[in-house]
Amino acid sequence: MCMATMSLNDAYQHCQDELVTAGLLIRSGVPGLYGFNGVFEDVIERFEMAVTKRAKPLKAEVMRFPAIINRKHYLQTTHIENFPDLMGSVHSFLGNERDHAKLLDKRTRGDDWTTELEPTEVMLTPAACYPLYPTATGTTLAPEGRLVDLRSFVFRHEPSPDPARMQIFRQREFVRMGTAEQALEHRAYWLQTGQEILNSVGLQVDSVVANDPFFGRGGRMMAVAQKEQDLKFELVHAVATTEKLTAITSCNYHLDHFGHTFDIKTADNEYAHTACIGFGLERIALALFMTHGFDPDHWPSDVKSVLAL
Amino acid sequence: MCMATMSLNDAYQHCQDELVTAGLLIRSGVPGLYGFNGVFEDVIERFEMAVTKRAKPLKAEVMRFPAIINRKHYLQTTHIENFPDLMGSVHSFLGNERDHAKLLDKRTRGDDWTTELEPTEVMLTPAACYPLYPTATGTTLAPEGRLVDLRSFVFRHEPSPDPARMQIFRQREFVRMGTAEQALEHRAYWLQTGQEILNSVGLQVDSVVANDPFFGRGGRMMAVAQKEQDLKFELVHAVATTEKLTAITSCNYHLDHFGHTFDIKTADNEYAHTACIGFGLERIALALFMTHGFDPDHWPSDVKSVLAL
Repeated sequence: MCMATMSLNDAYQHCQDELVTAGLLIRSGVPGLYGFNGVFEDVIERFEMAVTKRAKPLKAEVMRFPAIINRKHYLQTTHIENFPDLMGSVHSFLGNERDHAKLLDKRTRGDDWTTELEPTEVMLTPAACYPLYPTATGTTLAPEGRLVDLRSFVFRHEPSPDPARMQIFRQREFVRMGTAEQALEHRAYWLQTGQEILNSVGLQVDSVVANDPFFGRGGRMMAVAQKEQDLKFELVHAVATTEKLTAITSCNYHLDHFGHTFDIKTADNEYAHTACIGFGLERIALALFMTHGFDPDHWPSDVKSVLAL
Repeated sequence: MCMATMSLNDAYQHCQDELVTAGLLIRSGVPGLYGFNGVFEDVIERFEMAVTKRAKPLKAEVMRFPAIINRKHYLQTTHIENFPDLMGSVHSFLGNERDHAKLLDKRTRGDDWTTELEPTEVMLTPAACYPLYPTATGTTLAPEGRLVDLRSFVFRHEPSPDPARMQIFRQREFVRMGTAEQALEHRAYWLQTGQEILNSVGLQVDSVVANDPFFGRGGRMMAVAQKEQDLKFELVHAVATTEKLTAITSCNYHLDHFGHTFDIKTADNEYAHTACIGFGLERIALALFMTHGFDPDHWPSDVKSVLAL
C-alpha cells in the first residue's frame, strides 16, 4: 500500500476493501455497520481473555449491560447537550390497526412513515459505563470504592468510510468509583497496564492527551477545557493509515461528574469520582490484522502466545 | 414458591425479585431491560460453548452481526407489516447548532424533543438471521446449500414483568439456506439436537407447534396459517411459572420467503428455502437457574460436566 499519494478517504476505502475481500468484515450497505467472520470474532474473544487474565487479581465486579439504556437515565447525563449528533433514540409503533394502516399507506406513498412511531423507554447506549452509574444511585461506596468490569456494544451515529469508525462496536471497560485519588490511581494504573497489554500483542501504541467530539462551537470550548485538565488519554495506533492514528483504547477521568449526576457518595460523604479505561475491541482487532496480517496463524509467535492462538 | 394462588403477573414479579435479589439480574427501571452479573454471563458463555462443540462437525460458516441492521434491508422484509409493534427504529439528531438549541429548549419545556430527530439508516435487528439474507442477495448457492452459525442481540419492543421476556436478548442461530428438502432436514436435525442439548443440561423441554405474534386481526389469520403448515416449533420449559411455559428455543421453516425477498437462488435456479434454530440464550440461562438453583456450583454434576463448570 502506498498511502503517501492517497487522500484519507481513499486510504479508508482501500483498507475497508482489503478487510472485506479477506472476509474479516462483511458490508451491510450502511457506512460503519459491518458483520464479522469467525476469524475476526475469535481475535476479539482472545484479546478479551488476555485482558481478563491480566485483570483477574483485581477481583472486579463483572456486570454486563445490553446496547440499550433507560431513556430517563440517558437524559440524566449531559450526552444530549454534548453529543446530540451521536445519539440513538429508539422508536416503535404503539398504535392500533387503523394507525398501522396509515403507517403502511405512508410508506407505500413514499412518505416518511416514521412520523407514526413514538419514542420508547430506551435509547442506544453511548458508552459501556453509562448503564452502570444509575444502578449505584443513592448508594454510599465502601472506603475502598468499587471496581467494575464491563463490556457492551455501544452506538454512535457517525457514518464513516473509515473501517475503524463503526456505528456500533464493543467496549471492554474497567471503571473505578471512589475518591478522586482512587479514580486517578485507577486511570494511571490502567493507562500503564493498557499500554503493556497492547504492546504484548505487538501494538506499539502512543499515549496522547485527547478530547471527546463535543458538538458545535460551545463544544469546542468543552474540548479545550477537557484537554487542559488532562481528563482524557488515548492509546493510538495506525489502522487504515499512518497519516491519521486511531484511538484503540482510552482512559478517562470524569471528576465527580457521574457521582454528582447519579448521587453516588464516597464513604466520607463526598460525591464519588470515577475513571475508566475502555478497550475498543473492534479497533484493536483491526489494528492487529493491519499490523500482523490477515491470517492469525502467521502472526508472530509471542503475539500468538499472549492470545493463546 | 406457591404458584397456584398467584396471578401470572405476580408470579413474574416474584421470579424477577428472586433473580434480582440473587444478583443475577440487575434492574434498569425499564420492564424487560436488565443487566447481568458474571455468574449469569458465565452460564450463557458455557451453554454456547456446549452448542459450539456439538455443532463443530457441521463446519458452519461463522458470521456475527451487531444489534442494528440496514433500514433498507429491514424494509425489504415483511416485519413492518407483521410485527410493527415490536420494531425498533433508530433516530438521531442531524441538525445544526440552532436546531440543537431548539431541541434542548423543547426538552426544558417538557415538550417532545424527539420531534427534532430524524430516522437514521438503521433499525434494531428483529432476529439474528435478518442481517444474513441481504449479504446473500443475488447469489446462487452451491448444491449443498449454506449453513451459517449466527449470534446477535435482537430487539423486540414488548415491555413485560416476565423476566423471560426481555426487550433485548441474545439468539444463537444456525441457519440453512438451500432446497426445501435441505431446509426441512436442517430443521428436523436441529429440533432433535436442540432437545438433546437442552436435556443434557437438565432441561426437559416439550416440543410444540407454535406461531409468531403477528400484529392485529389480519395477524390472527397469519398465525393460524403458520400453525396449520407446521412452520414453527418451540422447545418450551417453565421459567417464572409452570402455569405458562416459555419458549427457550425455536425451530422455524421459512419456505422460500427470504430466498424470494433477497433473491437467493439454489443451484437449480429456484428461490432458496431457509430454516433456522434459535437458542434464546437469556431464557435458557433463566431456565437453568430456576431449575437447578441460583448457584451453579451446586448444580447436578452431569449438568456441570456438560457446561464445563
